[in-house]
This record gives sequence, C-alpha cells and structure tokens, in this order.
Amino acid sequence: MKIALDAMGGDYAPSEVVAGAVAAAREYGVEIVLVGREDVVRAELLKHNIAGLNLPIKHAPDVIEMDEKPAQAVKHKKESSVMVGLKMLTNGEVDAFISAGHSGATMAGATLGSPGRIKGVDRPGLATVFPTKKGLTLVVDVGANTEVRPEYLIQFAQMGAVYAEKVMGRPNPKVGLLSNGEEDSKGNELVLATHKLLRQTPGLNFTGNVEGKDITDGAVDVVVTDGFTGNIFLKTAEGTVSVLLSLLKQELTANLFYKLLALALKPAFNKVRKALDYEEFGGAPLLGVNGVVIITHGKMKAKGIKNSIRVAKEAVDSQMVENIRSLFQPPASKENEKVIKEQPETALSAE
Amino acid sequence: MKIALDAMGGDYAPSEVVAGAVAAAREYGVEIVLVGREDVVRAELLKHNIAGLNLPIKHAPDVIEMDEKPAQAVKHKKESSVMVGLKMLTNGEVDAFISAGHSGATMAGATLGSPGRIKGVDRPGLATVFPTKKGLTLVVDVGANTEVRPEYLIQFAQMGAVYAEKVMGRPNPKVGLLSNGEEDSKGNELVLATHKLLRQTPGLNFTGNVEGKDITDGAVDVVVTDGFTGNIFLKTAEGTVSVLLSLLKQELTANLFYKLLALALKPAFNKVRKALDYEEFGGAPLLGVNGVVIITHGKMKAKGIKNSIRVAKEAVDSQMVENIRSLFQPPASKENEKVIKEQPETALSAE
Repeated sequence: MKIALDAMGGDYAPSEVVAGAVAAAREYGVEIVLVGREDVVRAELLKHNIAGLNLPIKHAPDVIEMDEKPAQAVKHKKESSVMVGLKMLTNGEVDAFISAGHSGATMAGATLGSPGRIKGVDRPGLATVFPTKKGLTLVVDVGANTEVRPEYLIQFAQMGAVYAEKVMGRPNPKVGLLSNGEEDSKGNELVLATHKLLRQTPGLNFTGNVEGKDITDGAVDVVVTDGFTGNIFLKTAEGTVSVLLSLLKQELTANLFYKLLALALKPAFNKVRKALDYEEFGGAPLLGVNGVVIITHGKMKAKGIKNSIRVAKEAVDSQMVENIRSLFQPPASKENEKVIKEQPETALSAE
Repeated sequence: MKIALDAMGGDYAPSEVVAGAVAAAREYGVEIVLVGREDVVRAELLKHNIAGLNLPIKHAPDVIEMDEKPAQAVKHKKESSVMVGLKMLTNGEVDAFISAGHSGATMAGATLGSPGRIKGVDRPGLATVFPTKKGLTLVVDVGANTEVRPEYLIQFAQMGAVYAEKVMGRPNPKVGLLSNGEEDSKGNELVLATHKLLRQTPGLNFTGNVEGKDITDGAVDVVVTDGFTGNIFLKTAEGTVSVLLSLLKQELTANLFYKLLALALKPAFNKVRKALDYEEFGGAPLLGVNGVVIITHGKMKAKGIKNSIRVAKEAVDSQMVENIRSLFQPPASKENEKVIKEQPETALSAE
C-alpha cells in the first residue's frame, strides 16, 4: 500500500508530520510518499533513523497558506503539496492522500477538481469519530457543507452507515439525526424534512433524532448533521473537555497533599485523557470523493499524523471507496443490461 | 417580593419543587406562591418545617402533561398551574413566575398569551448561563426559536447584553456570535447575515464570531445563536461533562488503591462537579416577555429549584424587564412629545 502525505500541511509541519510518517511506516509497514519541498523534507528525514522504511519524496514547490481562499488556491497553486498529492491519488500512483494543511483547499481540490465526487453523490461529507461511553461514534458532516439540503443529509447517512459497517466493523449500524430533542416533532425545518426522508430511505437502520446526551451515551453508531451544526457539536465537546480538565488540574494542584495524591493517580488520569484525545483517533475521511482523502486537524502532532495514516490504511483495506460507490451505482443497471441482452434479437431490431 | 412557582411542573414535582421553595423562602426571605392542586401541595408542605416562612398556595386544578402540544395546552388548560401562574404575573399579583414543567407550553403561554412580548420584541429568547474558564457566560437562545431571522438574533444580542450588564454585573459586555470558525467569513447564511447586522448595531460590544473553544475559554460575556444551535451547544456540553465524569469514575475505581486516593481527593472533585453543576445555575430567563419568566430544567431537584428562585429574584431586583423595555422604547418618543409640547400653539393649530 502506498499513501501520499502532505508534508507541508499543518501547524507543526514539516517536523511533526514527517515524524508521524516515519512512525507509521515502521508500525504499519506501508509506503508513505512525502509530498512537499524536496530539500525541506529531505532535511527532516535526515533527523530520523529510516533504515528499511519506504519513505520516498515527491517534490511540490508550492505551499497553500492558511489565509488563502480555497477556490483561489486550487486554481492557482497546481504545484502545491495538496494539489500534487491529489493528482497522484487520481492517477492511481497512491492509494490514499492525507493533509493536515488547509482543509478548505483540500476539500475543494478533491471535490471540485480531482479525484472528484463519486457519481451520484451530491456533496461529500467530512466524517469523524467521537468518543462516547460505549466506544466511538461516527459524525457526518463536521464541516464540509455549511449550507445543505435534506437530500445531502440522506447521503451522509448512507455513506456514514457504509463506513461504520465496513471500516469500523459495526453490523447494521444505528443512524441518528442530530436535533434539539428526541421526539420526531423536534428540529428546525431542515431536520424535520430530513427526518421524514430518512424514515423512507430503504436499507438504513434509522433510529430517530438524537441530542448531545444520547450521542455521548453511545446510543447510535452514526450521527447525521449539516456541516455547520456538526462543527459546533465537535468544537463544543472539545472545549468542554478542555474546561473540565483545566478545572480538575486547578483543584488537584491546590495543595501539596492533593498534588501527591493526584501524582499517584496519574496512570488513571492518563487513561481518561487518552480515551478523549483526538490525536488517537486520527484524521477525518472525506466520504463521497472518488478516492481515500483524509483531512487531519492542523494541530495534530506526530501521534495524530501516525493515526491519520492508520485511518487511511483502514479505509483502503476495507475498500471504503468501492463500498460507497456501490451505494450509488446499484446492480440495477447491470440487471437491466442482462434483461436487454436476454431479449430475442427481433425485439431489439427495429420495428 | 412575591414569586409564583409552578408546584406541579418538573420530573420531581411536587416533592422536590416544594422542597426547593421552602429552602428559597428561608434563604432569600421572599414570599413564594405555590401554584398547583391545593391538597397535593398542602400535603407536601406539611412535610417541612415552614414556621415563619411565607408560602401561600394558589389552587390550579389542571396540569399540563409533557406530551401535550404547547398551543393546545395553552388554549385548553386555562386552569393549569402554568396558565394560572402566568395570569398572576400579568395581573401584577406576583413579581415573577417559574416553571420546571412543560417548557414549550410555558414559553407559548408567556409569549402568545400573557404577559406577552415587550413591545418591539420580535421573538423572546431563552437565556442560560454556561460555565467557562473565566466564570459564567450567557447563551441566548437555547431553545425558544428553532426558526429565526437575523433580526431576531440582533435582539437576542441586545437583550443578552442588557442581562449581562444589569443582572450579571458585567460592564460593557462582550458579545460573540456562535459560528463554525472565528473568521468573519465563516458561518451558514444565517450567521453571515447576522454578523453583518451585528457589526452595524450601535451600542453593542460585538467582538465577532466565536466557536466552542472560545466560549469555554470565556472569551465573551454573551453568546448569540439560534435556538436550535444553542440547544445543541448546551446539550453537547452536558453530555461531554457526563462522559468525562463517567470515564474518570471508571478509572478511579479500577482498584482499591485508586479508590482510596480518589476518596481523599473527594473535596477537590466535588469543587469541580459543583463548578459544572447546572443545578447551581438555576433556571433560564425568557428574555423579551413583559414579566420575569424563568424556565427551569425538568430534571432539577430542590437545589436547582432554589437556585431558579434566586435567578428570578436577581432579575426582579435588577429590573431586568424595565431595562429590556427601555431598549425597545427609547426615550426618543418622549423627546418627540416634548418637542411637540414646546411648539408654539400656532404651529400645531391647523390651517
């Protein structure tokens, strides 16, 4: 397996990104193509022991800056690490592409440019896993689409369910719709319309509306929402964890006695921290594009980059793209072909 | 001061509600009118030592059930505790009304019925305080309006700023707009339009967009959002606290040694729990109605009810309603009257 990684993208690029790639190459035994300025990437690689690892460099002279507009960047920075990496994916040179850089540009490049959308997909959705009391839950969309229609959300549900089943190993995954109440009657216009459509969508195990508490209780495998609300959801949870941990730290270091007790409990606290650490979960797959594209949080360090490579590997191994593709290109057309082939010739020949 | 309390509303009514009222009457020295079925409420009161406390009962034979539709309940249950309490407020018999019961019915009754909206207010907004690293932040709206226009959000910002200043004691409060990114360009259509209007609204200390992390960091005093998103925000935070505390509990009770250490740290943990305990904050004022109406979480026990009575008392003490009213009925009209009065008679007499 060959995975392209944007070596120039992210707040800690290239050092942490390259360090994560080295760790992943060693741990997962995959080939990782580092896309970026050759001299810069080479200098980083020299800091590591990479004997026996497969870490080629693909030169890309340009870098997309964080304040650039996505569409502009896609149009004018063809030689950027993002665009070069996406091109390699499109050409089949690699099996996946990962970037912790400009997420808007990566999504725009992958969706509007190449590899483009899977035929039949209206809008790709960004999916991320979220820790709950019962393990991980997938949330789609967490930021790719701030303006949506109910139809897009149906597709997020379908693609999310495929991901939950095929990549996360959840048979017949439960799908919930994020709303301001569990009752079917709760929600804004978008949610009410989506709820109705979800009830009518065959092949989905739709269990109804979910609110924050249901999600953290682990009531469903997949949460469907628009990119605006999903983003608020995710960042609120992150912020709440941060405020709670900071409160805990403040109280547990209030005096020397507490400090000593807390020190002895450190392994327990570390387990909790790890269970909620987004670096452990890795990046977010962009569901609905015609290749494995993983968007990674800009703040991820080596551990997060390594885990993003794991997420990419799992998506490739489980044929995520092929499985989503088959959702939108059902065998019906093949059956039609068969029906046509089986017609006696006379029926097909004119008049 | 006289405060009416819906004795029949809430998951733990009437026992916990009455217990909260007794505690509040003792602690704050206010008169609390218990609205509900006289025999039921009297039986509850008899369980307490209420010597010297002012806790009259106002009989209301009906109870609004949680599965009733708000508009229906308002129309057909005129003798319910909610409707009787709101009527007392409208007639000036009490200074505030509090309910932990059917929030939709209470909001509909107060907004569409009596005391009704303050003149000039498009939609009342439900406001609640939220714990951050720097103290409490006010969030408006957290559930009164799932469908909104930018103009409503401007009023939420104005009313929220008045509440922050007059009730919470924050001079020149900072106002932020909840969005999926801090940049001015981030947001859905509603947020983008609201952002523009907020920038143009005089008298507001609008500091721009905020995301989850900014709010929990305590970057602003008031967060403005629509009722759908605000509700998601609030419940996500609640759920996240719950999952984190349950993870902590799991790890800190993993063995006897940890259990003993954790026990010794209990006072510190209790401080953290208290800082995040919504029962400490009390109920949510419905900003924009023509009287002090406090909507309280149905799950509140005696402590939460007592604190909701404190919130009502603070709103009355600080003349919350008068202050909001003056926002929408500026002295301009009085000045005009004065100008008209000062005109020489000839100017006013008709040709």
